[in-house]
Amino acid sequence: PDMESIAGAKDRNGQLTKPPGALGRLEELAIWYASWRDTDRPSIKSPQIIVFAGNHGVCAQGVSAFPSEVTAQMVSNFEHGGAAINQLAKTFGATLNVHALELEMPTQDFTTAPAMSQAEVVIALMAGWNAVDPKADLLVTGEMGIGNTTSAAAVAAAVLGGSAAEWTGRGTGVDDDGLARKTDVVARGLALHDASDPLEALRCLGGRELAAMAGAIGAARHFRIPVILDGFICCAAAAALEKAVSGSLDHTVAGHLSAEGAHDKLLEALGKQPILSLGLRLGEGSGGALAIGVMQAAVACHSGMATFAEAGVAAG
Amino acid sequence: PDMESIAGAKDRNGQLTKPPGALGRLEELAIWYASWRDTDRPSIKSPQIIVFAGNHGVCAQGVSAFPSEVTAQMVSNFEHGGAAINQLAKTFGATLNVHALELEMPTQDFTTAPAMSQAEVVIALMAGWNAVDPKADLLVTGEMGIGNTTSAAAVAAAVLGGSAAEWTGRGTGVDDDGLARKTDVVARGLALHDASDPLEALRCLGGRELAAMAGAIGAARHFRIPVILDGFICCAAAAALEKAVSGSLDHTVAGHLSAEGAHDKLLEALGKQPILSLGLRLGEGSGGALAIGVMQAAVACHSGMATFAEAGVAAG
Repeated sequence: PDMESIAGAKDRNGQLTKPPGALGRLEELAIWYASWRDTDRPSIKSPQIIVFAGNHGVCAQGVSAFPSEVTAQMVSNFEHGGAAINQLAKTFGATLNVHALELEMPTQDFTTAPAMSQAEVVIALMAGWNAVDPKADLLVTGEMGIGNTTSAAAVAAAVLGGSAAEWTGRGTGVDDDGLARKTDVVARGLALHDASDPLEALRCLGGRELAAMAGAIGAARHFRIPVILDGFICCAAAAALEKAVSGSLDHTVAGHLSAEGAHDKLLEALGKQPILSLGLRLGEGSGGALAIGVMQAAVACHSGMATFAEAGVAAG
Repeated sequence: PDMESIAGAKDRNGQLTKPPGALGRLEELAIWYASWRDTDRPSIKSPQIIVFAGNHGVCAQGVSAFPSEVTAQMVSNFEHGGAAINQLAKTFGATLNVHALELEMPTQDFTTAPAMSQAEVVIALMAGWNAVDPKADLLVTGEMGIGNTTSAAAVAAAVLGGSAAEWTGRGTGVDDDGLARKTDVVARGLALHDASDPLEALRCLGGRELAAMAGAIGAARHFRIPVILDGFICCAAAAALEKAVSGSLDHTVAGHLSAEGAHDKLLEALGKQPILSLGLRLGEGSGGALAIGVMQAAVACHSGMATFAEAGVAAG
């Protein structure tokens, strides 16, 4: 972050026509945003939402309530404007880009082999990096991939420690038997692979869309584009970055607390306080997209309000 | 609410391309909104924000960190587009209307006399009623009035019971001495007036902007316009309505939990779960306005998403 912009933005915030601190967390968000845009009076004009889609060999283990075909069907739904994320992008004036990552070639089942080869994970990381529009001024990374809460739980456990049971949740809505099966699958994946290195965790246990989100978050840092993290899967991918290089998520905020069981634990591990908590558990970047509105409001207040001096208001 | 629209909206919600319940509270909000718009597929095109301003005789007791002149100065700031609520209205495409209610004639100091006469409170209620645009499809009622957290605490205590200390908070930011003084002022107001009738509470302890918000919320019910309640002061005015006629807030949701101390207790008494909780304590309708974005997103998803059948997605 740019220290001069932080100082300038804090100074401006203190002069705006409101009691000190009366905009609560909006003030902190605006100052944080300014610090990555290298100005004390930023604006949000071009938010970008990217949804990466991938398929997962681990679906063979019966970990999802939906069949793998749904990944491609939902990509088609995104392309035709029919999904939740399309409506959210439209509501907040964001550009939506969808990248289907070799859906016809699922990752390997991580209970028997590494999910991806070295070449495959690098290609996915680069797909994510290249998907970011350098001119965007706010980024949400989302995903679609039947089976990917299983991969995300395995990545989170490998990167942050803890048992499979602590990180495995109900995803799109599996029952108790399904949850027990998922937990066992995650435990077997953790036992099979040496994933102490965070990028090895993404490769052996993750998926193309997880690696792509990590790549996109990295690119956003390069271009100084603030990022709103989405739910459990996005945060698991982000956790691998943070583990690889401490501080590498400083340009990100947590858009929401999802209903996926271990998301609160994951946010706590990342030191991120969610902006929203509305029980979403959809993926697609939906929780992050919903938080775009809050970021737009925070930045609009910060940069658009009059100061006490400008408005001729007594400062108390 | 219209039962047929609820049934239709629930049926539609169950067919949308997402796992059941995956949009969390957005689903409930969209169905609630539909029920007041008499359609299973509503839209939000014309949100209205109304800010009512009033001055308070009780300021003579030293209850605020700001002088009374700030009320008129902030009205001027609203009219020139420099306040937080202007930026929030612009961000979410809402119309903003500001009504200054006889600022040059503050209410009486309620520690010595009723704040308003019968005629005055009726005029304020009608000003609120008449301020609502019948063509609006979502309403936020906000306020500006130095001293009005003191009035709101007194109204809340009179309407809902409990001691002055339970309902009195720091408002725009008084210190410990100021808080003790405010609490004493509220206690003296409660002791002086027989305010067991909720409209008498508004008249004797409230203020013009509180009465106007109550009138506007009543008008919105008449026109079947859903309302997003703002913070402590708005909710205190709304509580008088609810006490007068049980169920009269069924067309309202709580936009946010503010940082004013007793707002959580007030929301609990109203049975309302806030949409946002970001530590705002500004008034002006700011927290309600911020929640417009969430309502727009909820309704956009509900009415804009494809069904499983339309999108050719397997329903799991």
